[in-house]
Amino acid sequence: MSAPTATGGPTATAERPGNRVEAAEDFGFEVEARDGDARCGRLRTPHGEVPTPAFMPVATYGAVRGLDAADLRAIGARILLANTYHLHERPGEAVVAKLGGLHGFTGWHGPWLTDSGGFQVTSLAHRMKIDEDGVSFASPRDGAARRLTPESAVAIQEALGADVAMVLDECRPLEWLGTDPQDAAARRRTREVVERTLRWAARAQRARTRPDQCLFGIVQGGVFPALRRASAGGTAALEFDGYAHGGLGLGEESARREELVAVANEELPPEAPRYLMGLGRPEDLVSAIAAGVDLFDCVLPTRNGRHGVLFTSRGVLRVRNARFADDAAPIDPDCDCPTCAQHGRAYLRHLLGEREILGARLASLHNLRFYLRLLERAREAIAAGRLDALRAEVAAVARRSAGASA
Amino acid sequence: MSAPTATGGPTATAERPGNRVEAAEDFGFEVEARDGDARCGRLRTPHGEVPTPAFMPVATYGAVRGLDAADLRAIGARILLANTYHLHERPGEAVVAKLGGLHGFTGWHGPWLTDSGGFQVTSLAHRMKIDEDGVSFASPRDGAARRLTPESAVAIQEALGADVAMVLDECRPLEWLGTDPQDAAARRRTREVVERTLRWAARAQRARTRPDQCLFGIVQGGVFPALRRASAGGTAALEFDGYAHGGLGLGEESARREELVAVANEELPPEAPRYLMGLGRPEDLVSAIAAGVDLFDCVLPTRNGRHGVLFTSRGVLRVRNARFADDAAPIDPDCDCPTCAQHGRAYLRHLLGEREILGARLASLHNLRFYLRLLERAREAIAAGRLDALRAEVAAVARRSAGASA
Repeated sequence: MSAPTATGGPTATAERPGNRVEAAEDFGFEVEARDGDARCGRLRTPHGEVPTPAFMPVATYGAVRGLDAADLRAIGARILLANTYHLHERPGEAVVAKLGGLHGFTGWHGPWLTDSGGFQVTSLAHRMKIDEDGVSFASPRDGAARRLTPESAVAIQEALGADVAMVLDECRPLEWLGTDPQDAAARRRTREVVERTLRWAARAQRARTRPDQCLFGIVQGGVFPALRRASAGGTAALEFDGYAHGGLGLGEESARREELVAVANEELPPEAPRYLMGLGRPEDLVSAIAAGVDLFDCVLPTRNGRHGVLFTSRGVLRVRNARFADDAAPIDPDCDCPTCAQHGRAYLRHLLGEREILGARLASLHNLRFYLRLLERAREAIAAGRLDALRAEVAAVARRSAGASA
Repeated sequence: MSAPTATGGPTATAERPGNRVEAAEDFGFEVEARDGDARCGRLRTPHGEVPTPAFMPVATYGAVRGLDAADLRAIGARILLANTYHLHERPGEAVVAKLGGLHGFTGWHGPWLTDSGGFQVTSLAHRMKIDEDGVSFASPRDGAARRLTPESAVAIQEALGADVAMVLDECRPLEWLGTDPQDAAARRRTREVVERTLRWAARAQRARTRPDQCLFGIVQGGVFPALRRASAGGTAALEFDGYAHGGLGLGEESARREELVAVANEELPPEAPRYLMGLGRPEDLVSAIAAGVDLFDCVLPTRNGRHGVLFTSRGVLRVRNARFADDAAPIDPDCDCPTCAQHGRAYLRHLLGEREILGARLASLHNLRFYLRLLERAREAIAAGRLDALRAEVAAVARRSAGASA
């Protein structure tokens, strides 16, 4: 799968930078239908196909909060995301590699995507310092000095055996990147982030050794449309197998995010998959899908589930609320998940209140099924040319939910 | 199911004490085969039959540590135990009753047994005080004054809708009951416990109102064989639907426990089921089965599982041990549980180390399946007249395990 060929198949040319390895024939991305800028399609990997747009449940430590492979298949998951940083710390990529990579280690034999570890390092690690070579930090586990570089991020992900790996980008918080497109100092800092991320991306491309893993570049640029456009163009020139929008979902307004995604997408090869990292709420996903995004991941369904915040076709249901104490109804009568088929709100409320781990499991199953079903509906809507109607429905439910909790 | 008729069916007679309610025809216990004092049989309840001897997984808060009804059925569970005290505190028996009792509330539609709450009160509550009327204590949740009596224990369990309820007995720690059969002061205290438990048992019988719930009496008597015999005889005279051996599994020696169970069993009607509460290790269960016990419960499989202590056909495996860090083998190659079918030791070790709740779930599935399979093997062995061979095998594995960890 290598942009910018029409079929998405690999196109080895002499002009490729460095000694880069091509993703094998097993990879591919085909757009099957469009509805405005939105598209539905199919991501092919050596471990199976993924209908897109797709949502990737997050398996931080190589497991999705109480669920195993059979559970995830049952609710319609097709691809999982694992956090490179966590698995690098423990058990270490050498152990995972020895046990057959993420697939053999975890028992999920479908496709895996791994992040680069950069986001976790900058959000979790102590004494983080970014220089041109990479990121230095102290492990939050044992305080030991650690280092992550564009090359080591590729090497770790190759050892983990992900189907899709991500380049190491320069991750900075919103305070650094700025929130005001008129902020000249923030713009200067963000331009440096874009330029370093491009240099790191080129190094990552050169570092690849596995033909059975594809690599996605990452677009940066903060809240500055021109920087997003430049970053996308520069990243596309490095001819990655796919592209991610980075540094979003940090609290920026939805309309601004859409604009930033749209301007970058204009520079990205249309036949390559696009991934919006770490987003978000159902209404965020549908608006990004409308802007042409194909892949998503977010901890929201599992994290919110553990706290009793449940997604339903009628809006958010806070099941810890006392009024559900003797409510036998399923979380969402319209839901087809195993939790709603078997259990009522009162039982789930009770389990979460007692911190009985079945509660977290049942909530994860429900919320993930809600997200996966939402993506199924988005694919159907795009194929039928009716994404606008779905978007309006999801936005209306979100407004009603916000009103109800206000 | 009312001892002592040969078939275990109800035998309403004018001589019954008080206004007691008979367990309905739906209940019954039939002994199908014997091997020495051991027997295998069948406990019939309105919610299904239970082949005995049986092990009851403990669903403290109405859930077995991350497992739901489908999981429990898959590993061969036939009856669950719920803790009355915990459910009385939250969500309260009125809520459970409104939602269809334990069956409707939890989604486990097979048989349920509830304890009386007495053991939890004396082990968990603050400022516990026992008088002739019942037990006073302060709730560990909110410090509020609470009271449990033989009558309220029955009423709570009737509201919970258990198939089998337990009488409130006077629960005392080993320090109170004594460990030395020659200790005259401990013997005096224990005699008082036996006598009060008998008075409470008679009150519990009179308090019953539900014909669809059976009630088990509890034998006390500490380490004193004559008191055990007297307690069993007095309890049997109250004509319960089944009988439990209480105050055991508190650290007494296995041989002494067997003697105490055997002497009490001589006074219990042979056609009624016998339950040894809270036991224990696999070798303890098999030795109690040999002494004629039919029902067991214990938190050991789930609690040990969470701590990485796993039962196998070759002895205990401490999966947190560093030597399993890259071990792809299943926990027990001879095990037919879903965990062993899909996952290796290294993955389980990793999950438990990261406190990822899938680890506790997979460990619970494995350890419970080990116990349930052990009971299946015991039933087969009794039917074949070969329980001694199973007992020798289990004892040998236990000795080897103890040697290995020494």
